[in-house]
Amino acid sequence: MTTEMKLPLSPLGKLEMILNVPRKKLLDLTKDYKFKVLKKGEILFKHGSEVNDLIIILKGNLRIVKLLDGREINLTLLNSGDIAGAILLNSSSQSFYPGDIQSINKSEIILIPKNVYHTCWINDPDIYAKIQNHIQKRITYLHEDKSSQIYSIEKKLAIFLLRHFSESLTKKDLAPIFTKREIASALGARTETIIRAMKIFEKKQLIKIERKEIILLDINKLKSLSV
Amino acid sequence: MTTEMKLPLSPLGKLEMILNVPRKKLLDLTKDYKFKVLKKGEILFKHGSEVNDLIIILKGNLRIVKLLDGREINLTLLNSGDIAGAILLNSSSQSFYPGDIQSINKSEIILIPKNVYHTCWINDPDIYAKIQNHIQKRITYLHEDKSSQIYSIEKKLAIFLLRHFSESLTKKDLAPIFTKREIASALGARTETIIRAMKIFEKKQLIKIERKEIILLDINKLKSLSV
Repeated sequence: MTTEMKLPLSPLGKLEMILNVPRKKLLDLTKDYKFKVLKKGEILFKHGSEVNDLIIILKGNLRIVKLLDGREINLTLLNSGDIAGAILLNSSSQSFYPGDIQSINKSEIILIPKNVYHTCWINDPDIYAKIQNHIQKRITYLHEDKSSQIYSIEKKLAIFLLRHFSESLTKKDLAPIFTKREIASALGARTETIIRAMKIFEKKQLIKIERKEIILLDINKLKSLSV
Repeated sequence: MTTEMKLPLSPLGKLEMILNVPRKKLLDLTKDYKFKVLKKGEILFKHGSEVNDLIIILKGNLRIVKLLDGREINLTLLNSGDIAGAILLNSSSQSFYPGDIQSINKSEIILIPKNVYHTCWINDPDIYAKIQNHIQKRITYLHEDKSSQIYSIEKKLAIFLLRHFSESLTKKDLAPIFTKREIASALGARTETIIRAMKIFEKKQLIKIERKEIILLDINKLKSLSV
């Protein structure tokens, strides 16, 4: 039996992979950056606190969650490779987080200070385009969520899986881990419903689950389920 | 009895008011613009058609609406002074409308061609900041909508009225007209429910209705109802 050697990527190495920029530019973009490892459930920023950083998720998943009359409203789910805070930092006035920024599972993030974001990120055409694509994706997802109230659980699950597991970024080191309970909570469904739907997806060979990790086997079929 | 003389603003005059830029700059920004008057219910662009213009609403209201299994999903409601298409044009790839762009009532719009948007709008720091504020507002509204499922009808109505009638832009010439049925449809409520809630708001002197036009009398009180 051979043992595969795996050198874990450094935080900047992961960011380099995400942004796909030359090292020199990366160093400008990450001036005064902070690297943080978040525990499952940890709150990075509280609802209503001022936005002073761009957040980039290197590994794991975060959510923006609002507590309302004892209920949790998932405003956004963030994947590795995603950014948060860009829209709020782009605005001319002071901005505040619309919900708690909470780690769903063990996550790694990088924080870029506001002033570095304004001087280096916004003024770089390549990076600017990437940020705009993120913002567009965010709005597309929010539109999809508006329609999804009347979707079947299969359709909701297909959309969820495609959103979170079909990105080119989900290489071994960055693949997200969601428990079935977390997926259920994100979709506003009961855990048993998700377990049943995932079993059907496995049986139909649309996905496989390997040590908690979800692997998409038939992206085209999932896409046809999602529309 | 004296008759008040009212000179209606020209399309560019209205746009000048909305953007608040010098005439010289306005002429650059409106190179090759098109002005259109839309009838109630008219569809400006169909769901799935390519986005080639920035849309600016001078007067009236538009919505982005998706038809799904015979049901209408209101993705976004647009007011006079609002813009549509900016996020989609910012993206590096070809973009398509996520729903029909439909006029709710008689509306006036200006279309700015994609290339003028890219050369003149994005590169102007003032205009860029205004666009970013619009995008942020759009996302804030989509987040609010996610939470609003569990809101009371009073809270939903207060949010709706503040969104559409408290803007500094709703001067006489630009004030939107919504029928109670249109408000009901936007809030996913029955028309009778809206009629009843509006009557209560009038009795409490939060609003008054003058010739179909809704005027907010107590913005602070409406704000306290909306949070």
